[in-house]
Amino acid sequence: MKHPTLIQTPTQTQFLSVQDVAALVSHAGIAATLTRLADYILDDYRRWQDFDKCARVASHSPDGVIELMPIADAQTYAFKYVNGHPKNTRLGLPTVMAFGVLADVATGIPLLLSELTLSTALRTAAMSGVAARALARPNSKTMALIGNGAQAEFQALAFHYLLGIEEIRLFDSDALATRKLMRNLQHTGLRLIACSSIAQAVRGADIVTTVTADKSNATILSADLIEPGMHINGVGGDCPGKTELHPDVLRAASVFVQYEPQTRIEGDLQQMPADFAVTELWRVLRAEAPGRSSAAQITLFDSVGFALEDYSALRYLRDVAFELGLGQKLSLLPELANPKDLFSLIRPDASARANAEPALAWAA
Amino acid sequence: MKHPTLIQTPTQTQFLSVQDVAALVSHAGIAATLTRLADYILDDYRRWQDFDKCARVASHSPDGVIELMPIADAQTYAFKYVNGHPKNTRLGLPTVMAFGVLADVATGIPLLLSELTLSTALRTAAMSGVAARALARPNSKTMALIGNGAQAEFQALAFHYLLGIEEIRLFDSDALATRKLMRNLQHTGLRLIACSSIAQAVRGADIVTTVTADKSNATILSADLIEPGMHINGVGGDCPGKTELHPDVLRAASVFVQYEPQTRIEGDLQQMPADFAVTELWRVLRAEAPGRSSAAQITLFDSVGFALEDYSALRYLRDVAFELGLGQKLSLLPELANPKDLFSLIRPDASARANAEPALAWAA
Repeated sequence: MKHPTLIQTPTQTQFLSVQDVAALVSHAGIAATLTRLADYILDDYRRWQDFDKCARVASHSPDGVIELMPIADAQTYAFKYVNGHPKNTRLGLPTVMAFGVLADVATGIPLLLSELTLSTALRTAAMSGVAARALARPNSKTMALIGNGAQAEFQALAFHYLLGIEEIRLFDSDALATRKLMRNLQHTGLRLIACSSIAQAVRGADIVTTVTADKSNATILSADLIEPGMHINGVGGDCPGKTELHPDVLRAASVFVQYEPQTRIEGDLQQMPADFAVTELWRVLRAEAPGRSSAAQITLFDSVGFALEDYSALRYLRDVAFELGLGQKLSLLPELANPKDLFSLIRPDASARANAEPALAWAA
Repeated sequence: MKHPTLIQTPTQTQFLSVQDVAALVSHAGIAATLTRLADYILDDYRRWQDFDKCARVASHSPDGVIELMPIADAQTYAFKYVNGHPKNTRLGLPTVMAFGVLADVATGIPLLLSELTLSTALRTAAMSGVAARALARPNSKTMALIGNGAQAEFQALAFHYLLGIEEIRLFDSDALATRKLMRNLQHTGLRLIACSSIAQAVRGADIVTTVTADKSNATILSADLIEPGMHINGVGGDCPGKTELHPDVLRAASVFVQYEPQTRIEGDLQQMPADFAVTELWRVLRAEAPGRSSAAQITLFDSVGFALEDYSALRYLRDVAFELGLGQKLSLLPELANPKDLFSLIRPDASARANAEPALAWAA
């Protein structure tokens, strides 16, 4: 049926707070949340060509960056607002905070406004899991986790639930971060081993995840640490001037990326020449390009965080919040009896009848 | 005083709904709102060089466009989400709907989330008033207003209160729109005259405002209608493929724009060669370039809507909402005792104590 003329279309926006998203995760459980989120991401990556993609729009300042990340298919538009401020922890604030909106392409109505700080950690971990299922050796059991900050627990659990990782070898230059992680994950069934060096953590691991926070070109992994057959999940090298891997690590590996134009600028790939070969992950997920081709091959997922994962996360949140009846309505848009009569919102005679203050409303 | 370590910085975002902004306008009165808003815009345009500017990021679809408009100075970042869907009126929805955010550059915290549909109409009208005060003949008394849709009342009142316009000559191809406008403005002291053609409305007017909505290259004004000394306030030609003025009108006038790179793409200026001379308005407002230089000169403000006006509007809304105690707090960001412990938001033992449902939270 076509829309009849002047039927009122609802213009309220569903709002999910941090508490709503936390409740949503608690209700489903972390395992089910990461698993379903991975399914949403996989579905969207498999229809890669449906999306109007662009690199994110960044506003840089001395202390950090604020970015907008838009993406759309023919039905649904999404964007995320996200900051990156390494010094925020000194103020008791997270380094990365985010929120996002899902909107209707046909009308422009913002359907959902949601927190995305917690959700970004969940979707980043689910994305890493999706990539590793395609690229790591089957029956991987051990992961090194370098960087035990805000995102580390999410990575650990995604690899536990999505790949069956049983043992995680931890390293962080801040021992308190490692202790926090071990406390947070003590009842998960994961075997957690605190290591005294990166080399000790990496030795013998099937998968190596790097998720450090320094906004600088660091060498978290050098080529001598890398063993045949490893899958490297490089998460922390994600903006210009912020890398974690020595260039020789990239040279030793088959490198997979989300969206090549963005990763060339933001990923560990920024260190490599423009003709250094990479494979966009969606091609592997659609079986149009090979993933891992031998047990000895070294694979690297150079993750930078792409708008499509946020689109998937917002879609997931919308669906589950609807199922659970979570969230509240926000009056972000006007409801107008006549859409050409925007002025009716502030027409003094209307408000005068309500307020009995017409003089005030019209004083010049 | 420097921020001490780990003092909790407030992370709640102030939210202003459509109703809040309407209440804010009703409280101050429309005249005072437009006047103060014009002052905010003027202040920001006079410090043009302080801003990190870029053209808006547009996502086009067959029925419309969704845009993000970011801008920042050293202290404050702002962006607006805005759509343009000409067919929306058939669904009872406004053609243009918007919301926006003001954020702290130092930490990335979104301080204010506000409706901007109503506010965009107010700021567009105030911007037109700021330009016309610099460009129209002093003692202008009569304005033609072509296009009597959602934005028309705001334009009429801005010129009444900011420039002393006393008579407005109205034309719209939809006579109901004109009737709506006359009803809305019947107690304002403005002399309102409905005209049967564009030519009749324009003849003898000091100022001509065009604010039509069709997403097409239309000729609302042709050169034969333009008289010496007129100021043209061209508001409706504001995106690629959407123009209102015949190229000869631009050739006959001195053309002023907000941000030249954006207006070349979006304004009526899109019809002219790349070397067609224009003046950025901020230079006139800083007295670094001439505005009107003679009584016979024809001036044209080719308005497209630039992110800086939204920055000004959000700044104004924040200040007045604070004065009046309007709005509510939104939990868009997490409050964390330890900023590296994002996982604490969904740690099952924590939620288990609250919910007594640990099994549910950990089911694989």
